[in-house]
This record gives sequence, C-alpha cells and structure tokens, in this order.
Amino acid sequence: MPQLRKDPIIGRWVIIATERGKRPHDFVIANDAPLETHCPFCEGNEKETPPEIYAIRRENTAANTPGWDLRVVPNMMPLMQLEGEMGRRGQGMFDLMNAIGAHELIIETNKHVANITELDVDQIACVFDTYIMRIKDLEKDTRIKYALIFKNYGVVAGASPIRHSRSQLIALPVNPKRVKEELVGCKRYYEYKERCLFCDMIRHEINAKVRIIAHSDGFIAFMPYASRFPFEIWVLPQEHSCDFHSLNNSKGLARVMKTVMGKLSVGLNDPPYNYLIHTAPFRRKTSVGYWKTIDYDYHWHIEITPRLTKVAGFELGSGFYINPTPPEDAAKFLNEIKEL
Amino acid sequence: MPQLRKDPIIGRWVIIATERGKRPHDFVIANDAPLETHCPFCEGNEKETPPEIYAIRRENTAANTPGWDLRVVPNMMPLMQLEGEMGRRGQGMFDLMNAIGAHELIIETNKHVANITELDVDQIACVFDTYIMRIKDLEKDTRIKYALIFKNYGVVAGASPIRHSRSQLIALPVNPKRVKEELVGCKRYYEYKERCLFCDMIRHEINAKVRIIAHSDGFIAFMPYASRFPFEIWVLPQEHSCDFHSLNNSKGLARVMKTVMGKLSVGLNDPPYNYLIHTAPFRRKTSVGYWKTIDYDYHWHIEITPRLTKVAGFELGSGFYINPTPPEDAAKFLNEIKEL
Repeated sequence: MPQLRKDPIIGRWVIIATERGKRPHDFVIANDAPLETHCPFCEGNEKETPPEIYAIRRENTAANTPGWDLRVVPNMMPLMQLEGEMGRRGQGMFDLMNAIGAHELIIETNKHVANITELDVDQIACVFDTYIMRIKDLEKDTRIKYALIFKNYGVVAGASPIRHSRSQLIALPVNPKRVKEELVGCKRYYEYKERCLFCDMIRHEINAKVRIIAHSDGFIAFMPYASRFPFEIWVLPQEHSCDFHSLNNSKGLARVMKTVMGKLSVGLNDPPYNYLIHTAPFRRKTSVGYWKTIDYDYHWHIEITPRLTKVAGFELGSGFYINPTPPEDAAKFLNEIKEL
Repeated sequence: MPQLRKDPIIGRWVIIATERGKRPHDFVIANDAPLETHCPFCEGNEKETPPEIYAIRRENTAANTPGWDLRVVPNMMPLMQLEGEMGRRGQGMFDLMNAIGAHELIIETNKHVANITELDVDQIACVFDTYIMRIKDLEKDTRIKYALIFKNYGVVAGASPIRHSRSQLIALPVNPKRVKEELVGCKRYYEYKERCLFCDMIRHEINAKVRIIAHSDGFIAFMPYASRFPFEIWVLPQEHSCDFHSLNNSKGLARVMKTVMGKLSVGLNDPPYNYLIHTAPFRRKTSVGYWKTIDYDYHWHIEITPRLTKVAGFELGSGFYINPTPPEDAAKFLNEIKEL
C-alpha cells in the first residue's frame, strides 16, 4: 500500500507510491540538446561575458584574458542588480520593491566539460571556496538578506543548452519562502526537543542504514525519508553548522559530492539535476523572533534533485508531491554501483 | 528594472523579470506526443477501465457499457484507496500513515477530444457538477480531509499521452501544504482587515483593469499580481464563497472557463496546462484554530497554470519564482484575441 510520509522539517506530506514502484530503469531521461558550436564560457572567449568579478588565475595574467581556472562574472541577463534604491512600496493592496541584489555566474572550469563529475576533487573544492568568498563579499551589503547558490544541469533542469559546467548565485533582499519555512520548522523542533532537527536526522539515518549514499570526511549524504522526488539526495556536514560559508573543509565536501554525483551519473545515465545550497540568512543578529536561535537550530545542507519525473501542476499548485520510487529502493540501487 | 512582487496570500516574493520581457511568441511550446492508436477512455472501451463509480447515462443503458456522456472511474493505478486502516504511526523520529483516500478519473466526454475547449458549455457544466457530486460523496467519509481536483493537459503538464479530455480527484486524509498556507494567510488578513483577502483582490482587479481576462456570469478571471508563471490565471466567484461544492451556477463558471481556456489555446497555440481547484477543507467545524473563521476568510478559486517555461530546481528548492512575462503584458496579449 502506498504510504504518506511527513517531512519533519516543514510538515509536508508526500505520497511514496510503492505500488507504482518505478525502478530506476523505468525513467526515460531526455538530457539531450543540440551540440553547441560555440561556448562563451571557454578560455579565450572572455570578452563574451561581462567583466569578471573574481577569478582564480595563473601568475601574470590580466583580468578578462586567458590564464584562469575559474571565473565569476555577472549573469548576462541579470535578474537582480546592486545599483539603485530598494524602493519598497505599495501598489494598491499589493507590495513590491526593486530587484536589488546580485546575479552571478560561477564558471567552474576553463575546460569545456558539462558535468561537475568531470572536474577533479581539487577543482570542485575551488568551486565551493569561491561560493564562500562570494557569499562573504555580498554579506557586507546590508540590503542583501540571502544568497541562493544553485546549479541547473541539463536543459530539462532549466539550464541553457551550453554544456559548460557552471553554477549561479542570486543574492536577494528578501528570504526565500522555503528557507523561512525550514527556519520555522527547525525552531519549533528545537524548542520542543532542545536539539537540532537535522542533527537528529543524521543520527537517525546512521542507525537506519537504508538511505545513506556516502559518509566520509565529516559529511553525510542520504535520501530524505519523505523525498519529494525519486533519487533526491541531501548532503550535510555531520558536525552542526548553520552557515555554509563557515565551511573550512571544502575538500572533504568536494570528495563526497564527487562520489554522490558520480553515482547518480553512472546509475541514471547522466540525468539532468539541480542542486541548491540551503544556508541560514544573513544579518540575523539584528533581527527578531525566529532568527534568534538559528545558530543552534538550523543546519546548512545541499539538496540535490535529479529531474526524472515531470512535476505535474497539481504538485506545484497543492504543495503535495507524489514520489514513485521509495528512497530506500533508490539508495539500494545507487549503492550497488561499484565502479565510478 | 525587474520587480519583486509579493503574493499577498502566502507572502511569497516573485521576480517579475520585465527586462527579459518574454513576449508570448518567444515561448517554444512542445505539446506533441505520438498519436495514440487506441484510447481506453472512449465509448465502447468501458471494460478497459475499472468499474464506474458514477456516470451520466442515456436511459436504459447499463453501467460499464456504451451510452454515457461522462464517466467517473477509479484511477487505474490509484495513489490512494478507501480500504484499510489509517495506521498513523511513527517510524523512529518520522511520521507516516497509509494512503487512505481516493483517486478518481473524471472522463469528461465520450468523444475522443483532448482539450476542455472542445466541449460545449453544457458539457463543461456537467463536468463541474460531477466534481461537486463526487466531493459531496467523499465528504461523508470522516477520514477524508480534502478533495483535490485537477487537470493535467499535455505530456509536459504531466498527462499521459492519451488525448482524451479528463480530470482527476485525489481525496486525502491530510490537508495539502499549499492549502494550509492559503488558509493561514487569509486568516491573518481577515483578522487585520475584517475583509476577505480574495474579495479585496477582486475589487482591486476590477478597478485596476489591467489583469482581467474575463468577467461575466458572476465570475472573474484575472492574472494574479504576483504570478509565478507566465499566463497564470485565477478564476473566482465574484460573490464570497469558501466551498467549491456550494456552487449553484455551474453553467456560468463553464462559460467563463470556456472563454479563458479558449483564449489561452488560441493565443499560445494549444499550450500544455494544469488547473487545480483550491477550496476549503472538509470537517472544519470540528476543528480548532484557523479553521474557525474559514467561512468568512477563505474564497474558493481555480488556478490555471500554462506550462510555458521550465521550472528550474532552484524554484522548486527555494520557493522563489522567476516570471519572465509581467501579468499585465500577458493579459493585454490575451485580450487582443477576438475570434474564438
């Protein structure tokens, strides 16, 4: 019989449709796009992007010329910009403000490779260090409340058809809804239990042994109990920490991410996916209410969601998800993959 | 400059990316699927579905034989079932229950037509009357808290490739997350203003005149101020009402829906879409807290979401949406369509 499982963080019920029981081979994954003939993100084409904000460069090379290993540039069609006034105002009964913030592109390698799995561990660690550096820089702007870091891989996952490994940062003057919900959920749990919900979840998963994908270097990757999507994976630091940018072991995280993404890629034939870093908002010390206990009750993590099923409008409209593959089955399948 | 607009109901901020300014012709819509050679929902193939729960039949025709205009059958792969115990229980720190409920298919016509726009107004009214009848029947089961009614049109929107007009009902022993959020938001507004938020929104839209798509027969259809998706449309009864199944003018609703869906179909070249009815939960009289004022503060409505853009994982993961087409532009475009 299918089960209804409850996400303990935000209280969302998910149908785990065990009887439909999609096996990994049932997923028809279309990750194709016409092969591009030209890439604006490759070394030598620096003039085709806006001027770089940051780069890891070899000695004696000038900005916006070849000689780099990683570049950060403003998004070519930025959704947010740092210039201008916030202009928070009403419009009749409604509220709006200008889209003050930042929208950056992290070009993760000078090589024309598509997937993060094709980078070596040191380069992936550089990507995480770059995220941290950009977050710390944007945190100084008192108008910014949150920095969302995410990756769209494959056109099905919302990426453009250019197959050059990159991720995005959107800095916002508001907190995203989902983050607020997590903060509220974690605070409620902490008030009741006096423990971090995510720390409890890590202990639970280590005991249960059925949903873990990787566990090393101080990080753990598992499929959440109430997974919304088949093969959804969360990666967390085992030691409690609310801010992603307090990470001081980017190489350990890189190793675990490479393992996890490698298993997904091999097991599901290079599927489209997204990942999104969930971290605590900025400037909580000056705020009130549920921000107060956040150092103890929130726990940063990365949510990886392969795009194997179509999200029906019913799911978008109701907040109610149907997952045809129990996370235990998905974990078992990935853990049987030996060669990477 | 792009705007951040706030949804007044659940407080979600949306980027309205005016500068990317996608015009309707920019959307590449793939609503194709291989043409099916056989349809289990056509008249004459009644044996290919589970036995009917309800049907509108011509005189002297037996159940599960030809002679019907509309049929309701259990979904062939039901996500929920009425038989069994709820079995609400813990599993370590987690919560689960059996998927007690119902999952029904409303086959809207005996003809092999794909889109609701191809039905006449009387037949569409029959579809709404059938929704009401099924909701009233399921409401009697004290285990059921909510009946979600929705339609997936086109494979991109999550439908199977069989092009026969139908919708689905999922009856749940829990309230969907999104509905809870709307109830909380409407209650807060009511407590502050002593008015229904949706009633205020209707008055605002009538004055603003820039987002209305249809307004007749006691119903109004407009594009919400903080639309998450291009061409998102909400249809509401102008007179306050919290329960969809208290509707007594299904023909008026059918007329407005046929107009709205016709404009979408003509204007956007038969796009994939979903619609979902948002109505108040069952059995609120026996509950506590925010259910108490619901008769005054909640307002049923239908949310129509064409599937023109890929939802990036970033949006699913953050609850933060990017809409490349301002609703005012989308409304203007649809309202310039004269012939239907």
